Amino acid sequence: MNAVNQQERLSIDERRNWFLAGFIEGEGSVCVSIKEHRNGKFGYLIDPEFFVYQHKNRQGSLELARAVFGTGRIYPKSGNPDVLVFAIDARKSLIERVIPFLDQYSIFSSKLSDYEKFKKIVMALEKKEHWTKEGMIRIIRLAYTMNLEGKQRKRDIQEVIDRILRDYTPDTA
Amino acid sequence: MNAVNQQERLSIDERRNWFLAGFIEGEGSVCVSIKEHRNGKFGYLIDPEFFVYQHKNRQGSLELARAVFGTGRIYPKSGNPDVLVFAIDARKSLIERVIPFLDQYSIFSSKLSDYEKFKKIVMALEKKEHWTKEGMIRIIRLAYTMNLEGKQRKRDIQEVIDRILRDYTPDTA
Repeated sequence: MNAVNQQERLSIDERRNWFLAGFIEGEGSVCVSIKEHRNGKFGYLIDPEFFVYQHKNRQGSLELARAVFGTGRIYPKSGNPDVLVFAIDARKSLIERVIPFLDQYSIFSSKLSDYEKFKKIVMALEKKEHWTKEGMIRIIRLAYTMNLEGKQRKRDIQEVIDRILRDYTPDTA
Repeated sequence: MNAVNQQERLSIDERRNWFLAGFIEGEGSVCVSIKEHRNGKFGYLIDPEFFVYQHKNRQGSLELARAVFGTGRIYPKSGNPDVLVFAIDARKSLIERVIPFLDQYSIFSSKLSDYEKFKKIVMALEKKEHWTKEGMIRIIRLAYTMNLEGKQRKRDIQEVIDRILRDYTPDTA
């Protein structure tokens, strides 16, 4: 193949990455769980996670995701073993693998605003902004605007914020 | 536009197409409906269709699909108006738009065997192979092996074949 052909044709890796980005557009999600936990700062743990779902008969695309990201695990979805989940939750992997990928391959995505919020939250956690009450509340407010304005959340946001403001003292600081 | 910009623009189209292919991998499906119909050859109509699904809040990707294919319609899913469907069922569009696209952008897909069957059926219909009883039965047998071996079918394949073999006479030939 000459130089012109090489320029005209995207490399196989690039094609694979755009394909994966489209797959993630359909089957992927970013979410930020907020869990009550006695060891968490101000009584809460904040867990950003990246997921991709697929029927177990089509495992290939999840394996493609694992190959591209070079990390993550595949397991049956809780309560629905016909669906497999590919998940990455380690913060280092989110920062080094997932966010750069989503940044680079998001131009056709209609989920951009959730990605941007996800990224802000991961970077805020990395900067330990949740170690102050104000930072924690700011992160939680932002998390509650994700994924259709937090409709799937168990707890009302005011309940969470009130609990933080009541000066909950964690066991470990 | 100079030559370099033209190259860049071509590659944007390519990226968009690979992205769409990945999206289709997750949210798309090909199916071949087999409907009892008095005007159908041997009492049945065979309808190949291409679908892509998405939540109504993420309509952008379906519009991307319509832009790339240059045809198709978007409408609320029957029984679930929160989900939108992008559908192409005109045989000419399937042959000229959908199949060439799936052929070209399927290398990362794990749905390849369904696509191949879908393509065989569309081309068989185009060649009027369903105008003979043997051809009709061959097409129906192949359709029943699609989409997880036809588990979602209303009618047992033997019931369909028996009805054809009983020399059902259509109203119009």
